[in-house]
Amino acid sequence: MSPVSRRITCPTLATKVTSATEAASYINDGDRVGMSGFTGAGYPKAVPAALAERAKDAHDRGEDFGIDLWTGASTAPELDGVLAEARAVRRRLPFQSDPTLREAINTGETEYVDTHLSHSAQQAWFGFYGQLNVAVIEVAAILPNGLLVPGSSVGNNKTWLQLADKVILEVNDWHPRAYEGFHDIYYGTKLPPERRPLQLTDPLQRIGDPYLRVDPEKVVAVVHTDAPDRNLPFKPADEQSKAMASHVVDFLRYEIDQGRLPKNLLPLQSGIGNVANAVMAELAHSEFEDLLAYTEVIQDGMLDLIDTGKLTAVSATSFSLSAERAEQFNARAEEYKGRILLRTQEVSNHPEAIRRLGVISINGMVEADIYGNVNSTHVMGSSIINGIGGSGDFARNAYLNFFVSGSMAKGGAISSIVPFASHIDHTEHDTQILVTEQGLADLRGLSPAARARTIIRNCAHPDYQDLLQDYFDRAVAANARGQHTPHLLGEALSWHGNYQRTGSMKP
Amino acid sequence: MSPVSRRITCPTLATKVTSATEAASYINDGDRVGMSGFTGAGYPKAVPAALAERAKDAHDRGEDFGIDLWTGASTAPELDGVLAEARAVRRRLPFQSDPTLREAINTGETEYVDTHLSHSAQQAWFGFYGQLNVAVIEVAAILPNGLLVPGSSVGNNKTWLQLADKVILEVNDWHPRAYEGFHDIYYGTKLPPERRPLQLTDPLQRIGDPYLRVDPEKVVAVVHTDAPDRNLPFKPADEQSKAMASHVVDFLRYEIDQGRLPKNLLPLQSGIGNVANAVMAELAHSEFEDLLAYTEVIQDGMLDLIDTGKLTAVSATSFSLSAERAEQFNARAEEYKGRILLRTQEVSNHPEAIRRLGVISINGMVEADIYGNVNSTHVMGSSIINGIGGSGDFARNAYLNFFVSGSMAKGGAISSIVPFASHIDHTEHDTQILVTEQGLADLRGLSPAARARTIIRNCAHPDYQDLLQDYFDRAVAANARGQHTPHLLGEALSWHGNYQRTGSMKP
Repeated sequence: MSPVSRRITCPTLATKVTSATEAASYINDGDRVGMSGFTGAGYPKAVPAALAERAKDAHDRGEDFGIDLWTGASTAPELDGVLAEARAVRRRLPFQSDPTLREAINTGETEYVDTHLSHSAQQAWFGFYGQLNVAVIEVAAILPNGLLVPGSSVGNNKTWLQLADKVILEVNDWHPRAYEGFHDIYYGTKLPPERRPLQLTDPLQRIGDPYLRVDPEKVVAVVHTDAPDRNLPFKPADEQSKAMASHVVDFLRYEIDQGRLPKNLLPLQSGIGNVANAVMAELAHSEFEDLLAYTEVIQDGMLDLIDTGKLTAVSATSFSLSAERAEQFNARAEEYKGRILLRTQEVSNHPEAIRRLGVISINGMVEADIYGNVNSTHVMGSSIINGIGGSGDFARNAYLNFFVSGSMAKGGAISSIVPFASHIDHTEHDTQILVTEQGLADLRGLSPAARARTIIRNCAHPDYQDLLQDYFDRAVAANARGQHTPHLLGEALSWHGNYQRTGSMKP
Repeated sequence: MSPVSRRITCPTLATKVTSATEAASYINDGDRVGMSGFTGAGYPKAVPAALAERAKDAHDRGEDFGIDLWTGASTAPELDGVLAEARAVRRRLPFQSDPTLREAINTGETEYVDTHLSHSAQQAWFGFYGQLNVAVIEVAAILPNGLLVPGSSVGNNKTWLQLADKVILEVNDWHPRAYEGFHDIYYGTKLPPERRPLQLTDPLQRIGDPYLRVDPEKVVAVVHTDAPDRNLPFKPADEQSKAMASHVVDFLRYEIDQGRLPKNLLPLQSGIGNVANAVMAELAHSEFEDLLAYTEVIQDGMLDLIDTGKLTAVSATSFSLSAERAEQFNARAEEYKGRILLRTQEVSNHPEAIRRLGVISINGMVEADIYGNVNSTHVMGSSIINGIGGSGDFARNAYLNFFVSGSMAKGGAISSIVPFASHIDHTEHDTQILVTEQGLADLRGLSPAARARTIIRNCAHPDYQDLLQDYFDRAVAANARGQHTPHLLGEALSWHGNYQRTGSMKP
């Protein structure tokens, strides 16, 4: 890393250029720190490591050193990883996926506050998390007038820049300079009772500015970096993912036939992972045209859909590309301008926008119970995996929502369809369509008991189908006056208990 | 009931005036029927009874006769009660509270689809429930031009009138003729991708028309009635409700002191019941002024607040008054004009409006678990009580949400704070503040484990406090790598099992 960059052209802010170590010295024990980053994109690359060193040194001296860490969503080893490894994260919100940090949460060292992504910025504004002391935000460039060209994610950057007492900027030359014009930063948010409608009626509509703003008085340090984002490698879709994608796309065709969807569908949202990429691949080889996306992240599959011309435009808050695809994109960024817009996550995940646009939402799940309550976050009730992310924002407000998962895990030791979910993130009132490689359960307009019959028949793996049907039948028989959602409460969570005891959910 | 009314002044529609029996003959076995009604207000008073007779006659002849019944929310014995008693309801949505109907749902005779109130109209428009065959809508008057003056509730009436193939109108002289001008019927809803922003920035702002519209060609019958709404009697607040109300109001004062709420608060929503009325009573004797409400129903307590001048204006979708208070209101309706607006439930419960206005939401609960997951709908996991209603619409999108309940039920045999909720309607991601007569737990910004300590300490009844703490402590000890949400899954639902076996949750 060199101390200067041609990207830092604001005379005032250029005087603040310094080392990551110097920058990290502005962050104190107990501070609340808002950092950029959303799924391994656009996170600061240098200051977190320097801060981790600072924490380790303090700990070596027998002193306390820990921060509350707020981000957009998950980040990367260079942020969550190094800080968790240094035992420097006391509290974390709103979404994470780093293995070291996850371990710190599950061992009780770090407190994790798992808010909806659409709630994180507004609740910070409401003052529910306390005053934000420092913002550490990665950008692609600083313009002569002090405006900031955002990088590969927007997330909560606008909010952290506005709320923090002190600001540290990282200017990363790795981001294409051509990012200028890719972003739409909405500055119309207010606190109630001053809030006004979000005048957004089309996924690609601009309602804000291309730049982030910062009060130069608050900037204490500017750090120059040239380092790549660290997203997860792309895995080609396996047969199971392809089967699930095929169920989803066939169902969309069916809905068009029934007159319930336009021919070019409605704007798509898809969560992170292989099923999402498989759905995009299935669409890429389909008859669909003129598709739109209003989503959180742009994965490889969605970029492919743009390349093939199937996808006209996508609104998101972040990229989440494989290393190869990110390099390709960076080299050709200019070609995508006008077809990709990155927004603040307040807007990408806003209930108002999602409901108005009528988004079709596709998200993964850990498990669903026979009544369609979905667990997106926990293993066996107690341990967190990543967090709810935006799945609740999208599922609740979508026109159609899908939750997808393989019907089994751990080589068949775990059924993803269970009598009673060991944690519930999406309730029966919110979930519409469940998909496994076995099939699809359309739960719309069904009572809980009818849902159970459909889910067991269509989605459960044959190895668990009879066991689930047996549970349901006995629950029906045992609840003469509880036929709405028949349960055997003494047995409802026993499958998880079996797994914990014997290594298999089977009795 | 006389066959004519001075309220039916449209020449075309006056020719359709007929008996309830004749009107009911337009409803066939298997029909989907959308009726008016929201919490015992504004439901049709005559046609349901005639329809029930028709069903009984058919059943006596050995024929099938049953309908899918869609409403705004709960209704009254004259609608849900008579139809359930006649075994004429095959499927019901979206909210109910009639004892006979509840029994039919819990014995499996009636399928109940418990959707969010904000989802019911749009999902009907989306075609998720099938084609609506008949609408049966109570109104206060039919104008010469055919426009309809709505009655004491709006609910889904606009949607049912638009979607149904056939329309039956009941004109009820009991409603004050002065209702003209009390309603705001928003006709700007569209299907995606044609949806536009809801331009609502103030609870009392008009964005629609004072009248319901109906295509006169679709009207097959007009029935004249003169019968009162049947709301529940008002019960004066007991000591427990007063204690909970006092915790809520003290907390609002605290939030003002902390600079997190304006002095006149933000628009209030309160669910149905005694605690809601107690909160209104507490506010009536407080220092608060210039209050606003953006809510579903107007109960006695809210009308009192208007009378004392504390509450400037209220937006709702329905009245839910005691018989005495309803008679008083009807006699003086004109005085309330301009301070009360009744909207469609699409708008009263719209996520967009609730979030923008920053509503303070107060709803009852059946139970909460130690992590703040809330059960609003079920007894012991299997039996439905009423339904989720609008509690999810408000809780998710509120500025602040409260869930309130006495800490015990059934004379201490049931704790409303449990290790694991036997049904979950509001997840940990959505619930902010739990209140019992014991105290208040502010869960904002806390990790699940910290939530548990707060809830057990502040909200649990002393009779159950040690048992809950013991469960939590042992769950912590047993989950070295599950400290995020520590549970003992083999024991998590055992309190409910105890109650089912022994009549008490205690071991």
